[in-house]
Amino acid sequence: MVNPEIGGSGPTVSKDLRAIVFDTFGTVVDWRGSLIASLGRFGVERGIDLPWDKVADRWRSMYKPKMELVRSRALEWTILDQLHRAALIEILPEFGISTLPEDDLRFLTECWHRLAPWPDAIAGLTRLRRKFIIGPLSNGNFSLMVNLAKYAQLPWDVIFGADLFRHYKPDPEIYLGACSLLNLRTDQVMLGAAHNYDLVAARELGLQTAFILRPNEHGPGQKTDLKPEQAWDVVATDFGDLANQLVG
Amino acid sequence: MVNPEIGGSGPTVSKDLRAIVFDTFGTVVDWRGSLIASLGRFGVERGIDLPWDKVADRWRSMYKPKMELVRSRALEWTILDQLHRAALIEILPEFGISTLPEDDLRFLTECWHRLAPWPDAIAGLTRLRRKFIIGPLSNGNFSLMVNLAKYAQLPWDVIFGADLFRHYKPDPEIYLGACSLLNLRTDQVMLGAAHNYDLVAARELGLQTAFILRPNEHGPGQKTDLKPEQAWDVVATDFGDLANQLVG
Repeated sequence: MVNPEIGGSGPTVSKDLRAIVFDTFGTVVDWRGSLIASLGRFGVERGIDLPWDKVADRWRSMYKPKMELVRSRALEWTILDQLHRAALIEILPEFGISTLPEDDLRFLTECWHRLAPWPDAIAGLTRLRRKFIIGPLSNGNFSLMVNLAKYAQLPWDVIFGADLFRHYKPDPEIYLGACSLLNLRTDQVMLGAAHNYDLVAARELGLQTAFILRPNEHGPGQKTDLKPEQAWDVVATDFGDLANQLVG
Repeated sequence: MVNPEIGGSGPTVSKDLRAIVFDTFGTVVDWRGSLIASLGRFGVERGIDLPWDKVADRWRSMYKPKMELVRSRALEWTILDQLHRAALIEILPEFGISTLPEDDLRFLTECWHRLAPWPDAIAGLTRLRRKFIIGPLSNGNFSLMVNLAKYAQLPWDVIFGADLFRHYKPDPEIYLGACSLLNLRTDQVMLGAAHNYDLVAARELGLQTAFILRPNEHGPGQKTDLKPEQAWDVVATDFGDLANQLVG
Protein backbone atom coordinates (compact mmCIF):
# COMPACT_ATOMS: atom_id res chain seq x y z
CA MET A 1 0.00 0.00 0.00
CA VAL A 2 1.31 3.38 -0.95
CA ASN A 3 0.84 6.29 1.41
CA PRO A 4 -1.48 8.60 -0.55
CA GLU A 5 -0.23 11.67 1.29
CA ILE A 6 3.25 11.30 -0.10
CA GLY A 7 2.50 9.59 -3.36
CA GLY A 8 4.50 6.44 -2.80
CA SER A 9 7.56 5.59 -0.86
CA GLY A 10 10.08 5.67 -3.68
CA PRO A 11 11.28 9.22 -3.56
CA THR A 12 11.53 9.56 0.20
CA VAL A 13 13.42 6.38 1.04
CA SER A 14 17.14 7.07 1.01
CA LYS A 15 19.18 4.99 -1.39
CA ASP A 16 21.71 4.70 1.40
CA LEU A 17 19.34 2.78 3.69
CA ARG A 18 21.40 0.02 5.30
CA ALA A 19 19.49 -1.28 8.30
CA ILE A 20 15.89 -1.64 9.43
CA VAL A 21 15.12 -2.10 13.10
CA PHE A 22 11.67 -3.15 14.21
CA ASP A 23 9.41 -2.63 17.11
CA THR A 24 8.50 -6.19 18.05
CA PHE A 25 5.46 -6.55 20.36
CA GLY A 26 2.48 -5.93 18.12
CA THR A 27 4.55 -5.16 15.02
CA VAL A 28 6.30 -8.51 14.49
CA VAL A 29 4.57 -10.81 16.97
CA ASP A 30 0.95 -11.14 18.02
CA TRP A 31 1.46 -10.70 21.76
CA ARG A 32 -2.26 -10.58 22.55
CA GLY A 33 -3.39 -13.71 20.73
CA SER A 34 -0.36 -15.64 21.97
CA LEU A 35 -0.74 -14.48 25.55
CA ILE A 36 -4.45 -15.30 25.71
CA ALA A 37 -3.73 -18.79 24.38
CA SER A 38 -0.90 -19.37 26.88
CA LEU A 39 -2.93 -18.05 29.80
CA GLY A 40 -5.87 -20.20 28.78
CA ARG A 41 -3.73 -23.35 28.76
CA PHE A 42 -2.30 -22.39 32.14
CA GLY A 43 -5.85 -21.92 33.47
CA VAL A 44 -6.94 -25.34 32.29
CA GLU A 45 -3.87 -26.99 33.87
CA ARG A 46 -4.36 -25.20 37.18
CA GLY A 47 -8.16 -25.35 37.17
CA ILE A 48 -8.40 -21.54 37.22
CA ASP A 49 -11.28 -20.17 35.18
CA LEU A 50 -10.81 -16.50 34.32
CA PRO A 51 -11.60 -14.20 31.38
CA TRP A 52 -8.05 -14.56 30.06
CA ASP A 53 -8.49 -11.98 27.32
CA LYS A 54 -9.25 -9.40 30.00
CA VAL A 55 -6.27 -10.56 32.07
CA ALA A 56 -4.02 -10.17 29.02
CA ASP A 57 -5.32 -6.70 28.22
CA ARG A 58 -5.10 -5.56 31.83
CA TRP A 59 -1.56 -6.91 32.09
CA ARG A 60 -0.53 -5.12 28.92
CA SER A 61 -2.19 -1.92 30.15
CA MET A 62 0.51 -1.77 32.84
CA TYR A 63 3.29 -1.78 30.20
CA LYS A 64 3.59 1.93 29.54
CA PRO A 65 2.98 3.10 33.13
CA LYS A 66 5.63 0.69 34.43
CA MET A 67 8.19 1.83 31.85
CA GLU A 68 7.27 5.43 32.57
CA LEU A 69 8.42 4.91 36.16
CA VAL A 70 11.83 3.97 34.79
CA ARG A 71 11.86 6.70 32.12
CA SER A 72 11.07 9.34 34.76
CA ARG A 73 13.67 7.84 37.10
CA ALA A 74 11.08 7.23 39.82
CA LEU A 75 12.34 3.64 39.53
CA GLU A 76 15.95 2.66 38.89
CA TRP A 77 16.76 0.80 35.67
CA THR A 78 14.67 -2.39 35.62
CA ILE A 79 14.38 -4.83 32.71
CA LEU A 80 11.06 -5.60 31.09
CA ASP A 81 10.93 -9.17 32.43
CA GLN A 82 10.90 -7.71 35.93
CA LEU A 83 8.33 -5.05 35.05
CA HIS A 84 6.11 -7.76 33.55
CA ARG A 85 6.39 -9.80 36.72
CA ALA A 86 5.67 -6.86 39.02
CA ALA A 87 2.67 -5.86 36.91
CA LEU A 88 1.29 -9.39 37.01
CA ILE A 89 1.54 -9.52 40.79
CA GLU A 90 -0.29 -6.20 40.98
CA ILE A 91 -3.20 -7.13 38.73
CA LEU A 92 -3.88 -10.70 39.90
CA PRO A 93 -5.93 -9.57 42.95
CA GLU A 94 -8.27 -7.72 40.58
CA PHE A 95 -9.14 -11.17 39.24
CA GLY A 96 -9.53 -12.74 42.68
CA ILE A 97 -6.05 -14.30 42.85
CA SER A 98 -4.11 -13.04 45.82
CA THR A 99 -0.89 -14.82 45.01
CA LEU A 100 0.70 -17.58 42.92
CA PRO A 101 3.66 -19.89 43.53
CA GLU A 102 7.05 -18.64 42.37
CA ASP A 103 7.18 -21.22 39.56
CA ASP A 104 3.86 -20.00 38.19
CA LEU A 105 4.93 -16.35 38.32
CA ARG A 106 8.05 -17.23 36.36
CA PHE A 107 6.16 -19.36 33.86
CA LEU A 108 3.59 -16.64 33.21
CA THR A 109 6.21 -13.88 32.94
CA GLU A 110 8.07 -16.00 30.40
CA CYS A 111 4.93 -16.31 28.27
CA TRP A 112 6.25 -13.02 26.84
CA HIS A 113 9.22 -15.04 25.48
CA ARG A 114 6.90 -17.35 23.54
CA LEU A 115 4.82 -15.20 21.22
CA ALA A 116 3.83 -16.19 17.69
CA PRO A 117 4.83 -14.03 14.73
CA TRP A 118 2.10 -12.48 12.61
CA PRO A 119 1.58 -14.80 9.61
CA ASP A 120 3.34 -12.43 7.18
CA ALA A 121 6.30 -11.55 9.38
CA ILE A 122 8.88 -14.26 8.73
CA ALA A 123 8.53 -14.37 4.95
CA GLY A 124 8.74 -10.57 4.72
CA LEU A 125 11.69 -10.30 7.09
CA THR A 126 13.52 -13.02 5.19
CA ARG A 127 13.19 -10.97 1.99
CA LEU A 128 14.22 -7.74 3.72
CA ARG A 129 17.24 -9.47 5.19
CA ARG A 130 18.72 -10.07 1.73
CA LYS A 131 19.19 -6.34 1.27
CA PHE A 132 19.35 -4.85 4.77
CA ILE A 133 20.66 -5.52 8.24
CA ILE A 134 17.56 -6.32 10.27
CA GLY A 135 16.92 -6.60 13.99
CA PRO A 136 14.48 -5.83 16.76
CA LEU A 137 14.51 -2.47 18.54
CA SER A 138 12.12 -3.25 21.33
CA ASN A 139 11.67 -2.37 24.95
CA GLY A 140 12.22 -6.04 25.74
CA ASN A 141 15.45 -7.03 27.44
CA PHE A 142 18.15 -8.75 25.43
CA SER A 143 17.53 -12.27 26.79
CA LEU A 144 13.78 -11.91 26.22
CA MET A 145 14.42 -10.86 22.61
CA VAL A 146 16.86 -13.77 22.11
CA ASN A 147 14.44 -16.33 23.51
CA LEU A 148 11.59 -14.85 21.49
CA ALA A 149 13.65 -14.98 18.29
CA LYS A 150 14.54 -18.63 18.90
CA TYR A 151 10.92 -19.51 19.71
CA ALA A 152 9.37 -17.63 16.79
CA GLN A 153 12.27 -18.35 14.39
CA LEU A 154 12.70 -14.66 13.61
CA PRO A 155 15.52 -14.27 11.04
CA TRP A 156 17.32 -11.34 12.71
CA ASP A 157 20.86 -10.34 11.84
CA VAL A 158 21.33 -8.62 15.18
CA ILE A 159 19.46 -8.40 18.44
CA PHE A 160 19.13 -5.24 20.45
CA GLY A 161 17.60 -5.12 23.89
CA ALA A 162 16.67 -2.08 25.96
CA ASP A 163 19.18 -3.20 28.60
CA LEU A 164 22.03 -2.50 26.15
CA PHE A 165 21.11 1.17 26.44
CA ARG A 166 19.35 1.22 29.82
CA HIS A 167 16.61 3.33 28.29
CA TYR A 168 13.08 2.67 27.11
CA LYS A 169 11.54 3.95 23.91
CA PRO A 170 10.74 6.69 23.14
CA ASP A 171 13.92 7.92 24.88
CA PRO A 172 16.40 9.03 22.19
CA GLU A 173 19.22 6.97 23.68
CA ILE A 174 17.82 3.67 22.46
CA TYR A 175 17.41 4.73 18.80
CA LEU A 176 20.74 6.55 18.75
CA GLY A 177 22.46 3.74 20.59
CA ALA A 178 21.43 1.21 17.95
CA CYS A 179 22.65 3.47 15.11
CA SER A 180 25.92 4.01 16.92
CA LEU A 181 26.53 0.29 17.49
CA LEU A 182 25.84 -0.31 13.80
CA ASN A 183 28.22 2.55 12.95
CA LEU A 184 25.54 4.05 10.70
CA ARG A 185 24.15 7.56 10.42
CA THR A 186 20.55 7.86 11.60
CA ASP A 187 19.37 8.40 8.02
CA GLN A 188 20.88 5.05 7.04
CA VAL A 189 18.58 3.32 9.53
CA MET A 190 14.80 2.85 9.36
CA LEU A 191 12.43 2.06 12.19
CA GLY A 192 9.53 -0.22 11.30
CA ALA A 193 6.67 -0.04 13.78
CA ALA A 194 2.91 -0.39 14.12
CA HIS A 195 2.84 2.52 16.57
CA ASN A 196 2.90 6.16 15.57
CA TYR A 197 4.50 7.37 18.84
CA ASP A 198 7.54 5.19 18.16
CA LEU A 199 7.95 6.57 14.64
CA VAL A 200 7.58 10.16 15.89
CA ALA A 201 10.57 9.66 18.17
CA ALA A 202 12.63 7.97 15.46
CA ARG A 203 11.91 10.63 12.86
CA GLU A 204 12.90 13.43 15.23
CA LEU A 205 16.35 11.84 15.40
CA GLY A 206 16.67 11.49 11.63
CA LEU A 207 15.82 7.83 11.20
CA GLN A 208 13.67 6.78 8.27
CA THR A 209 10.23 5.48 9.16
CA ALA A 210 7.93 2.64 8.08
CA PHE A 211 4.45 2.28 9.50
CA ILE A 212 3.14 -1.29 9.42
CA LEU A 213 -0.60 -1.56 9.94
CA ARG A 214 -1.68 -3.95 12.70
CA PRO A 215 -5.35 -3.11 13.19
CA ASN A 216 -5.96 -6.22 15.28
CA GLU A 217 -3.04 -5.97 17.67
CA HIS A 218 -5.42 -5.05 20.50
CA GLY A 219 -8.19 -7.34 19.30
CA PRO A 220 -11.61 -6.33 18.02
CA GLY A 221 -12.48 -2.71 18.67
CA GLN A 222 -8.89 -1.42 18.53
CA LYS A 223 -8.98 2.38 18.52
CA THR A 224 -5.32 3.37 18.29
CA ASP A 225 -2.79 3.26 15.45
CA LEU A 226 -5.40 2.44 12.84
CA LYS A 227 -3.72 4.82 10.40
CA PRO A 228 -0.49 6.73 9.87
CA GLU A 229 -0.59 10.00 11.80
CA GLN A 230 2.25 11.53 9.77
CA ALA A 231 3.48 11.04 6.22
CA TRP A 232 5.86 8.27 7.18
CA ASP A 233 8.46 7.33 4.56
CA VAL A 234 6.73 4.01 3.97
CA VAL A 235 3.28 2.77 4.95
CA ALA A 236 2.75 -0.97 4.59
CA THR A 237 -0.19 -3.27 5.15
CA ASP A 238 2.11 -6.04 6.35
CA PHE A 239 5.68 -7.33 6.01
CA GLY A 240 5.05 -8.69 2.52
CA ASP A 241 4.00 -5.23 1.40
CA LEU A 242 6.99 -3.69 3.16
CA ALA A 243 9.34 -6.06 1.34
CA ASN A 244 7.60 -5.31 -1.97
CA GLN A 245 8.26 -1.61 -1.46
CA LEU A 246 11.83 -1.85 -0.18
CA VAL A 247 13.26 -4.93 -1.88
CA GLY A 248 10.95 -5.29 -4.86
CA MET B 1 38.14 -36.04 18.16
CA VAL B 2 37.91 -36.96 21.80
CA ASN B 3 40.30 -35.38 24.26
CA PRO B 4 42.36 -38.36 25.47
CA GLU B 5 43.14 -36.67 28.77
CA ILE B 6 39.51 -36.61 29.81
CA GLY B 7 38.24 -39.66 27.96
CA GLY B 8 35.61 -37.93 25.87
CA SER B 9 33.51 -34.87 26.29
CA GLY B 10 30.29 -36.55 27.35
CA PRO B 11 30.61 -36.56 31.11
CA THR B 12 32.03 -33.06 31.50
CA VAL B 13 29.58 -31.11 29.35
CA SER B 14 26.70 -29.87 31.47
CA LYS B 15 23.26 -31.01 30.39
CA ASP B 16 22.15 -27.47 31.10
CA LEU B 17 24.34 -25.95 28.36
CA ARG B 18 22.22 -23.30 26.64
CA ALA B 19 24.54 -21.05 24.64
CA ILE B 20 27.89 -21.31 22.86
CA VAL B 21 29.83 -18.15 22.09
CA PHE B 22 32.77 -18.27 19.74
CA ASP B 23 36.01 -16.51 19.27
CA THR B 24 35.84 -15.48 15.64
CA PHE B 25 39.16 -14.41 14.07
CA GLY B 26 41.01 -17.67 13.50
CA THR B 27 38.33 -19.85 15.06
CA VAL B 28 35.41 -19.20 12.69
CA VAL B 29 37.00 -17.23 9.87
CA ASP B 30 40.35 -17.56 8.10
CA TRP B 31 41.55 -14.00 8.68
CA ARG B 32 45.03 -14.66 7.29
CA GLY B 33 44.12 -16.30 4.00
CA SER B 34 41.36 -13.75 3.41
CA LEU B 35 43.53 -10.79 4.27
CA ILE B 36 46.41 -11.89 2.06
CA ALA B 37 43.98 -12.33 -0.85
CA SER B 38 42.39 -8.90 -0.30
CA LEU B 39 45.74 -7.17 0.09
CA GLY B 40 47.02 -8.88 -3.06
CA ARG B 41 44.05 -7.63 -5.10
CA PHE B 42 44.56 -4.16 -3.70
CA GLY B 43 48.23 -4.32 -4.67
CA VAL B 44 47.42 -5.31 -8.25
CA GLU B 45 44.87 -2.48 -8.57
CA ARG B 46 47.28 0.10 -7.16
CA GLY B 47 50.40 -1.31 -8.80
CA ILE B 48 52.01 -1.90 -5.42
CA ASP B 49 54.13 -5.03 -5.26
CA LEU B 50 54.74 -6.19 -1.70
CA PRO B 51 55.09 -9.52 0.14
CA TRP B 52 51.45 -9.35 1.23
CA ASP B 53 51.65 -12.41 3.46
CA LYS B 54 54.32 -10.61 5.49
CA VAL B 55 52.22 -7.43 5.58
CA ALA B 56 49.25 -9.44 6.87
CA ASP B 57 51.30 -11.18 9.55
CA ARG B 58 52.98 -7.94 10.63
CA TRP B 59 49.60 -6.19 10.79
CA ARG B 60 48.13 -8.99 12.91
CA SER B 61 51.20 -8.94 15.15
CA MET B 62 50.06 -5.50 16.33
CA TYR B 63 46.68 -6.89 17.47
CA LYS B 64 47.53 -7.94 21.00
CA PRO B 65 49.90 -5.04 21.77
CA LYS B 66 47.30 -2.51 20.61
CA MET B 67 44.55 -4.09 22.69
CA GLU B 68 46.94 -4.30 25.62
CA LEU B 69 47.21 -0.51 25.55
CA VAL B 70 43.45 -0.37 26.08
CA ARG B 71 43.36 -3.20 28.62
CA SER B 72 46.07 -1.46 30.68
CA ARG B 73 44.24 1.86 30.31
CA ALA B 74 47.27 3.49 28.70
CA LEU B 75 44.79 4.23 25.90
CA GLU B 76 41.14 5.11 26.46
CA TRP B 77 38.49 2.76 25.10
CA THR B 78 39.05 2.38 21.36
CA ILE B 79 37.22 -0.02 19.05
CA LEU B 80 39.09 -2.64 17.04
CA ASP B 81 38.43 -0.92 13.69
CA GLN B 82 40.39 2.06 14.97
CA LEU B 83 43.16 -0.08 16.41
CA HIS B 84 43.45 -1.89 13.05
CA ARG B 85 43.70 1.43 11.25
CA ALA B 86 46.32 2.84 13.63
CA ALA B 87 48.37 -0.34 13.38
CA LEU B 88 48.26 -0.26 9.59
CA ILE B 89 49.52 3.33 9.52
CA GLU B 90 52.34 2.32 11.84
CA ILE B 91 53.54 -0.69 9.86
CA LEU B 92 53.27 0.65 6.31
CA PRO B 93 56.61 2.53 6.47
CA GLU B 94 58.34 -0.79 7.28
CA PHE B 95 57.26 -1.83 3.77
CA GLY B 96 58.35 1.41 2.14
CA ILE B 97 54.94 3.09 2.08
CA SER B 98 54.97 6.36 3.98
CA THR B 99 51.29 7.08 3.63
CA LEU B 100 48.09 6.14 1.76
CA PRO B 101 45.00 8.15 0.79
CA GLU B 102 42.14 8.14 3.30
CA ASP B 103 39.96 5.99 1.05
CA ASP B 104 42.65 3.33 0.85
CA LEU B 105 43.16 3.31 4.62
CA ARG B 106 39.43 2.81 5.07
CA PHE B 107 39.25 0.13 2.41
CA LEU B 108 42.14 -1.81 3.90
CA THR B 109 40.85 -1.50 7.46
CA GLU B 110 37.51 -2.82 6.30
CA CYS B 111 39.17 -5.89 4.80
CA TRP B 112 38.71 -7.21 8.36
CA HIS B 113 34.93 -7.06 7.72
CA ARG B 114 35.26 -9.37 4.71
CA LEU B 115 36.86 -12.59 5.88
CA ALA B 116 35.94 -16.03 4.62
CA PRO B 117 34.72 -18.70 7.04
CA TRP B 118 36.72 -21.88 7.40
CA PRO B 119 35.12 -24.49 5.11
CA ASP B 120 33.55 -26.43 8.00
CA ALA B 121 32.25 -23.44 9.95
CA ILE B 122 28.83 -22.69 8.52
CA ALA B 123 27.58 -26.27 8.32
CA GLY B 124 28.72 -26.96 11.87
CA LEU B 125 27.29 -23.73 13.27
CA THR B 126 23.98 -24.40 11.54
CA ARG B 127 23.74 -27.76 13.31
CA LEU B 128 24.75 -26.27 16.66
CA ARG B 129 22.15 -23.53 16.28
CA ARG B 130 19.33 -26.08 16.34
CA LYS B 131 20.12 -26.88 19.94
CA PHE B 132 21.94 -23.84 21.35
CA ILE B 133 21.96 -20.06 21.22
CA ILE B 134 25.10 -19.22 19.22
CA GLY B 135 26.99 -16.00 18.65
CA PRO B 136 30.45 -14.49 18.37
CA LEU B 137 32.37 -13.34 21.43
CA SER B 138 35.20 -11.54 19.75
CA ASN B 139 37.33 -8.50 20.33
CA GLY B 140 35.83 -7.04 17.16
CA ASN B 141 33.43 -4.13 17.53
CA PHE B 142 29.72 -4.73 17.04
CA SER B 143 29.49 -3.19 13.54
CA LEU B 144 32.54 -5.16 12.38
CA MET B 145 30.94 -8.38 13.64
CA VAL B 146 27.62 -7.51 11.97
CA ASN B 147 29.28 -6.75 8.64
CA LEU B 148 31.41 -9.88 8.89
CA ALA B 149 28.35 -12.02 9.64
CA LYS B 150 26.51 -10.60 6.63
CA TYR B 151 29.55 -11.07 4.38
CA ALA B 152 30.37 -14.61 5.50
CA GLN B 153 26.72 -15.63 6.04
CA LEU B 154 27.40 -16.73 9.59
CA PRO B 155 24.19 -18.11 11.10
CA TRP B 156 24.41 -16.34 14.47
CA ASP B 157 21.45 -15.97 16.81
CA VAL B 158 23.02 -12.98 18.54
CA ILE B 159 25.97 -10.71 17.97
CA PHE B 160 28.22 -9.46 20.72
CA GLY B 161 30.93 -6.89 20.17
CA ALA B 162 33.65 -5.78 22.56
CA ASP B 163 32.16 -2.26 22.49
CA LEU B 164 29.06 -3.57 24.31
CA PHE B 165 31.32 -4.18 27.29
CA ARG B 166 34.17 -1.74 26.60
CA HIS B 167 36.63 -4.48 27.48
CA TYR B 168 38.88 -6.75 25.48
CA LYS B 169 39.38 -10.44 26.09
CA PRO B 170 40.74 -11.86 28.29
CA ASP B 171 39.21 -9.26 30.64
CA PRO B 172 36.48 -10.98 32.70
CA GLU B 173 33.92 -8.26 31.91
CA ILE B 174 33.40 -9.42 28.33
CA TYR B 175 32.69 -13.08 29.18
CA LEU B 176 30.54 -12.18 32.19
CA GLY B 177 28.78 -9.43 30.27
CA ALA B 178 27.68 -11.86 27.57
CA CYS B 179 26.36 -14.36 30.16
CA SER B 180 24.53 -11.55 31.94
CA LEU B 181 22.86 -10.26 28.77
CA LEU B 182 21.76 -13.81 27.97
CA ASN B 183 20.47 -14.14 31.56
CA LEU B 184 22.38 -17.41 31.89
CA ARG B 185 24.73 -18.70 34.56
CA THR B 186 28.33 -19.00 33.40
CA ASP B 187 28.11 -22.81 33.48
CA GLN B 188 25.21 -22.65 31.00
CA VAL B 189 27.49 -20.95 28.48
CA MET B 190 30.43 -22.44 26.55
CA LEU B 191 33.26 -20.59 24.85
CA GLY B 192 34.50 -22.16 21.62
CA ALA B 193 37.96 -20.97 20.61
CA ALA B 194 41.12 -21.99 18.80
CA HIS B 195 43.21 -20.19 21.41
CA ASN B 196 44.12 -21.63 24.78
CA TYR B 197 44.52 -18.21 26.47
CA ASP B 198 40.88 -17.39 25.72
CA LEU B 199 39.65 -20.67 27.16
CA VAL B 200 41.78 -20.20 30.29
CA ALA B 201 39.99 -16.92 30.99
CA ALA B 202 36.55 -18.39 30.29
CA ARG B 203 37.11 -21.44 32.49
CA GLU B 204 38.25 -19.31 35.41
CA LEU B 205 34.85 -17.65 35.33
CA GLY B 206 32.95 -20.93 35.19
CA LEU B 207 32.14 -21.10 31.49
CA GLN B 208 32.38 -24.43 29.72
CA THR B 209 35.14 -24.70 27.14
CA ALA B 210 35.60 -26.11 23.65
CA PHE B 211 38.95 -26.06 21.90
CA ILE B 212 38.72 -26.08 18.12
CA LEU B 213 41.95 -26.96 16.38
CA ARG B 214 43.08 -24.46 13.74
CA PRO B 215 46.68 -25.51 13.05
CA ASN B 216 46.87 -23.37 9.91
CA GLU B 217 45.47 -20.11 11.27
CA HIS B 218 48.91 -18.54 11.13
CA GLY B 219 49.94 -20.34 7.94
CA PRO B 220 52.67 -22.92 7.53
CA GLY B 221 55.01 -23.17 10.49
CA GLN B 222 52.42 -22.17 13.11
CA LYS B 223 53.87 -22.78 16.56
CA THR B 224 51.06 -21.78 18.92
CA ASP B 225 47.78 -23.43 19.88
CA LEU B 226 48.62 -26.66 18.10
CA LYS B 227 47.11 -28.63 20.97
CA PRO B 228 44.91 -28.20 24.03
CA GLU B 229 46.96 -26.96 26.95
CA GLN B 230 44.34 -27.99 29.51
CA ALA B 231 41.70 -30.71 29.60
CA TRP B 232 39.04 -28.55 27.98
CA ASP B 233 35.49 -29.88 28.19
CA VAL B 234 35.47 -30.55 24.47
CA VAL B 235 38.29 -30.75 21.94
CA ALA B 236 37.22 -30.71 18.31
CA THR B 237 39.09 -30.94 15.04
CA ASP B 238 36.59 -28.58 13.39
CA PHE B 239 32.99 -27.37 13.64
CA GLY B 240 31.62 -30.60 12.17
CA ASP B 241 33.35 -32.54 14.94
CA LEU B 242 32.09 -30.04 17.52
CA ALA B 243 28.51 -30.49 16.30
CA ASN B 244 28.94 -34.28 16.33
CA GLN B 245 29.97 -34.12 19.98
CA LEU B 246 27.38 -31.60 21.17
CA VAL B 247 24.37 -32.19 18.96
CA GLY B 248 24.98 -35.73 17.74
